[in-house]
Amino acid sequence: MRTGIATVCLSGTLKEKMQACAIAGFDGIEIFEQDLVTSPLNPEDVRTMAADLGLGLDLYQPFRDFDGVTPDLLKANLRRAEAKFKLMSRLGMDTILVCSNVATATINDDGLRAEQLSELAELAGDHGVKVAYEALAWGKYVNDYEHAYRLVEMVDHPNFGTCLDSFHILSRDWDTAPIEKINADKIFFVQVADAPKLSMDVLSWSRHYRVFPGEGQFELAKFMGHVVRAGYTGPVSLEVFNDVFRQSDVERTAVDAMRSLIWLEEQSAKWLAGNASEGDAAASRRRYPMELATLPKVSEPAGFNFAEVKADDTAQLEKLLGQLGFAFEGRHRTKDVQLWTMGQARVIINEQAAQHAEPAIAALGFDVDSPVIASARAQQLKAPVVARKVQADEEVFQGISAPDSTEIFLCQGSPDGTAAWTHEFGEGPEHPAAGASAVIDHVNLAQPWQHFDEAVLFYTSALALEPQPFAEVPSPSGLVRSQVMQTSDGAVRLVLNLAPVQQAPVQQSPARQARKTYQEHIAFAVDDLVSTARSARDRGLEFLQIPANYYEDLDARFDLEPGFLATLQELNLLYDRDATGEFLHFYTATVGSVFFEMVERRGNYDGYGAPNAPVRHAVQYDLARP
Amino acid sequence: MRTGIATVCLSGTLKEKMQACAIAGFDGIEIFEQDLVTSPLNPEDVRTMAADLGLGLDLYQPFRDFDGVTPDLLKANLRRAEAKFKLMSRLGMDTILVCSNVATATINDDGLRAEQLSELAELAGDHGVKVAYEALAWGKYVNDYEHAYRLVEMVDHPNFGTCLDSFHILSRDWDTAPIEKINADKIFFVQVADAPKLSMDVLSWSRHYRVFPGEGQFELAKFMGHVVRAGYTGPVSLEVFNDVFRQSDVERTAVDAMRSLIWLEEQSAKWLAGNASEGDAAASRRRYPMELATLPKVSEPAGFNFAEVKADDTAQLEKLLGQLGFAFEGRHRTKDVQLWTMGQARVIINEQAAQHAEPAIAALGFDVDSPVIASARAQQLKAPVVARKVQADEEVFQGISAPDSTEIFLCQGSPDGTAAWTHEFGEGPEHPAAGASAVIDHVNLAQPWQHFDEAVLFYTSALALEPQPFAEVPSPSGLVRSQVMQTSDGAVRLVLNLAPVQQAPVQQSPARQARKTYQEHIAFAVDDLVSTARSARDRGLEFLQIPANYYEDLDARFDLEPGFLATLQELNLLYDRDATGEFLHFYTATVGSVFFEMVERRGNYDGYGAPNAPVRHAVQYDLARP
Repeated sequence: MRTGIATVCLSGTLKEKMQACAIAGFDGIEIFEQDLVTSPLNPEDVRTMAADLGLGLDLYQPFRDFDGVTPDLLKANLRRAEAKFKLMSRLGMDTILVCSNVATATINDDGLRAEQLSELAELAGDHGVKVAYEALAWGKYVNDYEHAYRLVEMVDHPNFGTCLDSFHILSRDWDTAPIEKINADKIFFVQVADAPKLSMDVLSWSRHYRVFPGEGQFELAKFMGHVVRAGYTGPVSLEVFNDVFRQSDVERTAVDAMRSLIWLEEQSAKWLAGNASEGDAAASRRRYPMELATLPKVSEPAGFNFAEVKADDTAQLEKLLGQLGFAFEGRHRTKDVQLWTMGQARVIINEQAAQHAEPAIAALGFDVDSPVIASARAQQLKAPVVARKVQADEEVFQGISAPDSTEIFLCQGSPDGTAAWTHEFGEGPEHPAAGASAVIDHVNLAQPWQHFDEAVLFYTSALALEPQPFAEVPSPSGLVRSQVMQTSDGAVRLVLNLAPVQQAPVQQSPARQARKTYQEHIAFAVDDLVSTARSARDRGLEFLQIPANYYEDLDARFDLEPGFLATLQELNLLYDRDATGEFLHFYTATVGSVFFEMVERRGNYDGYGAPNAPVRHAVQYDLARP
Repeated sequence: MRTGIATVCLSGTLKEKMQACAIAGFDGIEIFEQDLVTSPLNPEDVRTMAADLGLGLDLYQPFRDFDGVTPDLLKANLRRAEAKFKLMSRLGMDTILVCSNVATATINDDGLRAEQLSELAELAGDHGVKVAYEALAWGKYVNDYEHAYRLVEMVDHPNFGTCLDSFHILSRDWDTAPIEKINADKIFFVQVADAPKLSMDVLSWSRHYRVFPGEGQFELAKFMGHVVRAGYTGPVSLEVFNDVFRQSDVERTAVDAMRSLIWLEEQSAKWLAGNASEGDAAASRRRYPMELATLPKVSEPAGFNFAEVKADDTAQLEKLLGQLGFAFEGRHRTKDVQLWTMGQARVIINEQAAQHAEPAIAALGFDVDSPVIASARAQQLKAPVVARKVQADEEVFQGISAPDSTEIFLCQGSPDGTAAWTHEFGEGPEHPAAGASAVIDHVNLAQPWQHFDEAVLFYTSALALEPQPFAEVPSPSGLVRSQVMQTSDGAVRLVLNLAPVQQAPVQQSPARQARKTYQEHIAFAVDDLVSTARSARDRGLEFLQIPANYYEDLDARFDLEPGFLATLQELNLLYDRDATGEFLHFYTATVGSVFFEMVERRGNYDGYGAPNAPVRHAVQYDLARP
């Protein structure tokens, strides 16, 4: 599959964009007219630079408002088109995108439109240019790809074809199956974009909220499947207008974009394999002209292997874990790290932090079928590799860096939930105290606003986690956007939180601000939260103090048994209930940017106590006040 | 008019919100349930604190999903309501908002609904509570205020009335005239919110994009006019869910909120005076029970009086102005400021800046009918006053501080466009060089994202500038939102720009970042731009260099006369044309955060060369690269 991207997806100058696209590994680019007009590079410079970078210049865009106009306007439009054709010849480009008219069209007549587009095709032919005509979703008269294709058939000129854009097709809910009936020679270009399902006017939706494939909710694998079945073999190019991407680091965004196409390619191949076309039993084995590359296989992680917290001074972390009931298992034989466990919940305390670094979540380990295959997959998806020094005879961890810079380690799971590497820790007490059994229930990570969508695609594509519908939680400093990514069995649950900008503590260094704008936490699940809480209290744990008003409201909402309500309040426990079960939980005080949560799930309760989150935010906010 | 605000409008804890509301001068507040539930203050504390702050506790909200339910659910809902009634008694509150059911209603029968609401009214009566029933715009069965009122009439209980919310009424385009027919005794509460006209689902629109009156596009004066005519005399309270306000400084937002109500009160009185009700010729003189306070009158400013630029080292500014053709008129007799003029365009260079402070726009002077009246108005609208030292016999400037901290001076205009205070400048050359005539055409100010809506209301209410439809301009670091505020004759044009977050230069101090995240400029209009540009070039002016590609595109778009096009390119002039006329302009290089623009308007051209703005952004971005 030939990969492409429109320069309008990225921030920066044309030169910066081209360099970033080359680094990310794109085959070609679409040049957005404005990027050229505003550039100090002349067309010949751009041509040379693209050749040096190994980038094809696949499409010049956009040319707007050509068809369905008065004769006077047609003349002016042809003049304007010819100027662009000449420019394209200097750039060495042969395909131009012409969008259906949104502004100046006054005549709704397919015969006239075809006539005017024929004149354009003729002129394009004289200059060796191919015109890809696209139906914009909000085109005045032409807004349906099938209509655009009918016009292509009417024009019937070798230099006139169509461009299929997933946004313009899927935002209008057009059926994508008829794509297969289009003559592949007449599909001059294919653009892809994903988007969240929003109910708003399609123009605003398109101009601000498009995202890369895998970051939204469109059925893009199906769209691409139909395109492949049509026999199309040209570029598959991203055209994504997104307010955030336009403000973000250009190289990061280009890599995110490339990852989305690699993932889409795999998903499209899967869709084709799983969806034989009607009346064609052999279709699932049929080879199509477009070659779709495959990735190393992935399956959902079986669970968390460990969580790692890092600090310069680790005393507070050790104290908190001890009070929660974790046992100190010893120090690593060669590294300055400690292992603490509570049943199968393993927490590593890493002492190798920078001077004065406050406690923070640094790494997460996941149990996977094959760390090597999972790591190969992640690397093909352009995840940055994390290198860790290992000694001979120590377990090698395959590590990659998540978009928020948390280190993700791919570990060999075991049927009994143990981890072989724990034997590398040897200097702890002979018989660690047998505490309550626990597992890591979920981990809540703060995401920088520039990389939220990127993180969703990262965990979807590299770890096969499934994004759930997102929630918005009120806090005293603004709404917190909360996105759960989890496995189908709930064994791994990751909560990505997008915190309000103002929560960035101003006294911190810029580097730290980018990473930790918000408190993060690790939650452990136990069988009996009340007894866990009592034991922790007896050990002196500092609980997050829940206001009395909360318990009054709880009572008003749930009509709880008075003794139970009193226990909740006595121990600062929070409570939630829905049709599937009950949820009890409590929070510890925060050290650095990290705190811990203990939860008990009763019945099939599958949530996170969302109605209680505002209480936690408010109390933590109050404590953080000067 | 009794002013109120819901705590959900503001950031912070309940305590912080209450304090900010008291400082801003609100009569009362609505307590949003979650703000109490998450607070460590018990109800008695809240009651005492409100009394100490002089704040009425006017409404407890919200109580959701009561009506149209099964008998089982009704029982649970009544139990929940009673708990809240008891809580309200501890708070000393007597009115509760009950919203029409959006989630749990299963029975669509007004008879049953009235029956269930009667039970609620009865219970409320027992606790001395009044229930204000409100139709949410997205209520499952009840979403129209007239429908809610019919239910109030059916229930017919002294403790049961309705709440009118402008958002829920205007977002659905319900006719507001029938409000007048509602029995005033049955209107228990009125909530107001404005909003930009967006085409999206009404729930998202409501939860994220509401703004304070005067910051959106709803016809609120008319809404309030009908409410006043109905005979309502209770609180008029803001209920605004806005993602930005929830992240902003609580005291600033509370003042912005209060300003919006003061302004709305004036606009409502005006609407009533101008819109006699049908068949009632005396209505415009009729007094309604609700007293509407009036503000000192304002009319549009006649023009810019001056612009002031401030720097520690002013050499670069002096050089630029000199090269543009400005004449140095001398220094002020007592202050360290210089006056530079070009015709009626006056620029003050202020040398009293902090050490190492880069050049920046510091102040703007506007010609008004009466500086004292305008200043009184601004102060009643809670604009912060700027104090400047003056000597005896010097002109006293009435100054206020705009939301972006630009100082705004209200000056006595003169019929011939001169300014009396220029006589205080006396040590310049005896006969300043007679340059070309010029006026300040427009000033472009960068706005911090937290205070953009606040700025629109500020200039609307204090200076009678009219907001125009906003534009979004692409730049290499993201979209720039551009909002023109102008007088009807175009004599004063102010462009408020909301720049992408990433444009904040990281090396600057936080205080400066908040103010100057983006380049700002002053534009001067001349009669003959080509000759002005030639003279400036001869004086060595550093023009912003416009790429050659721009002129090729210009030619493709406009088919310009070759000699004219060559002149434009030779002098780095930009060009635009529309049905009303033509626009020529050029930019200078930037010093500190400020640059200058020279424009020539031909015919009735009323814009700002918007198609050229991306070129400017791209070139400036490129120059600012390390």
